[in-house]
Amino acid sequence: MTEFELIARHFAGRGAGRKDVLLGIGDDAALLEVPESHALVVTTDTLVSGVHFLPDVSPHALGHKAVAVNLSDLAAMGAEPAWMSLAITLPDSRHDWLDAFAHSVADICEYYGVSLIGGDTTRGPLSITMTAQGLVQKDKAMKRSGAKPGDWLYVTGTPGDARRGLELLQTPRAEITESADVRDALEKRLLYPTPRVAAGQSLKGLASAAIDISDGLLQDLQHMTSASRCDVEVISEQLPLSAALKASVPDHQRLKYQLAGGDDYELLFAVPEESRGSVDTALQHFAVPFTCIGRFKPGRGEVVVTCGGEPLSEQWQGWDPFRDND
Amino acid sequence: MTEFELIARHFAGRGAGRKDVLLGIGDDAALLEVPESHALVVTTDTLVSGVHFLPDVSPHALGHKAVAVNLSDLAAMGAEPAWMSLAITLPDSRHDWLDAFAHSVADICEYYGVSLIGGDTTRGPLSITMTAQGLVQKDKAMKRSGAKPGDWLYVTGTPGDARRGLELLQTPRAEITESADVRDALEKRLLYPTPRVAAGQSLKGLASAAIDISDGLLQDLQHMTSASRCDVEVISEQLPLSAALKASVPDHQRLKYQLAGGDDYELLFAVPEESRGSVDTALQHFAVPFTCIGRFKPGRGEVVVTCGGEPLSEQWQGWDPFRDND
Repeated sequence: MTEFELIARHFAGRGAGRKDVLLGIGDDAALLEVPESHALVVTTDTLVSGVHFLPDVSPHALGHKAVAVNLSDLAAMGAEPAWMSLAITLPDSRHDWLDAFAHSVADICEYYGVSLIGGDTTRGPLSITMTAQGLVQKDKAMKRSGAKPGDWLYVTGTPGDARRGLELLQTPRAEITESADVRDALEKRLLYPTPRVAAGQSLKGLASAAIDISDGLLQDLQHMTSASRCDVEVISEQLPLSAALKASVPDHQRLKYQLAGGDDYELLFAVPEESRGSVDTALQHFAVPFTCIGRFKPGRGEVVVTCGGEPLSEQWQGWDPFRDND
Repeated sequence: MTEFELIARHFAGRGAGRKDVLLGIGDDAALLEVPESHALVVTTDTLVSGVHFLPDVSPHALGHKAVAVNLSDLAAMGAEPAWMSLAITLPDSRHDWLDAFAHSVADICEYYGVSLIGGDTTRGPLSITMTAQGLVQKDKAMKRSGAKPGDWLYVTGTPGDARRGLELLQTPRAEITESADVRDALEKRLLYPTPRVAAGQSLKGLASAAIDISDGLLQDLQHMTSASRCDVEVISEQLPLSAALKASVPDHQRLKYQLAGGDDYELLFAVPEESRGSVDTALQHFAVPFTCIGRFKPGRGEVVVTCGGEPLSEQWQGWDPFRDND
């Protein structure tokens, strides 16, 4: 059995059995059916050992994350996840490792109704490339470019936790002063991000723009304001803060985690005044925390962070030694 | 400019501008339109340095090949190529190298009408993962599993050349006795394979089964007979032989190149008796060489190579030190 067959075997009889898969793994290509009224949504992400994850990460966490980061991109478009291709490069044949990895990939795919439709296994330094495909009603996809002056800026979850989790994972256990609960909560946000799939779909038609946070709130927000051609004010006092990050990081250092942490996989989205009530109602169904953190203004794409109504001059971008900053 | 932006820039204003790309590079995901009467065809292939290509390969050849091997999978399904995602991992930032690579990718994509819809650039040991997507009329895709006893077996091109080309590339120039013409012809088959895109599409409705040859004729034929549940006789005297391979390899060694060489990216296909005339007519339009090399028989999936009507006992499979054999 090849390694890819081993991965595929974990999908047999799992939630991945979609009727729109006309031909799955085992031929030169997969054959898929896209409903007439829908557009196809496609995203690709690569995770490289030592760049996007620590080399000693568990195969279970890695399998989850590789899927989650791709589903997060689909969520930011408001798409329903459908199919996934998986290309994995492995330094050697470790069947236990691959078994745990594939099992984890199957679990998260089953949870989100995603079918594994193909892929490739090759020998080499550990890396994973996934291409995720989703479906969205035509003309309903959320883009980065739709925010307008006057729209409110929202974020799901509590950005910053994942970055602190990474630091704790890189710190010798004996030097960690946080409680086990705090440490676990922060590390889990790094290792097991939750793609905001249901929230993303429920925001279609309500949010005017959306993007997921992978490189840090400010950096991804900058993409949104540039594409939307307006400014935004981020009110630092309104940034959501988890109890774990509050317990782990001193007050004066908190902002850089929240604004530039990265690896959050939360959604940033813009909401016109008239849709705020509908957004409240829609998101309450999903038990996803969400917070209004600012407002869009006329301008040329600038992001301003304020405290007490005054702009902060500190620069947070580029604080990212672990991730590749391309 | 990030490296991926550099790649994407080469596609601006090129043949890649398809009307079915509703949203291309630059958001969280691409948005694509699939015609109602068509199925989506998806394939993923990874090329790793030192496994699938020589580390010193030119970026131009690598760009061509990375696209070609994926289009070859689409061709084997009879699909029209449409969109491609490109994930590239690079050890360092060499703009000249990337420029040549991207230029070559753009050239071949433009030639085949393919649009680059997204991707990712990461830092690490050189490897490329491409996901190619195509379109095919519903129920018209060619599969591996449709061959029936009595069908004739055909192959395009002259398998074996690419493998000899690889050996010549690995041989010091001073030790090569072949003429420059012979050497160039064989090396070119390895470095610049031609995906049989038009031939594949013209075989739809005529061929009963098809597969592309990437791991060697016998190995890929074995996939077809297993999926189709019948035997096949390959008549060794009928195997097509290029003038270059004839000049480069002694008669008694030729068969192993033709049968087990790999990296050919030719099509193997099955044709029912009543469609032979139509296949002749269809393929003559495309100036693609094609040869009938055997016939399917009742059985359980066995591949038999004969010479003078007698089965040959030699084993060719597994002769593949360069490629990953998974």
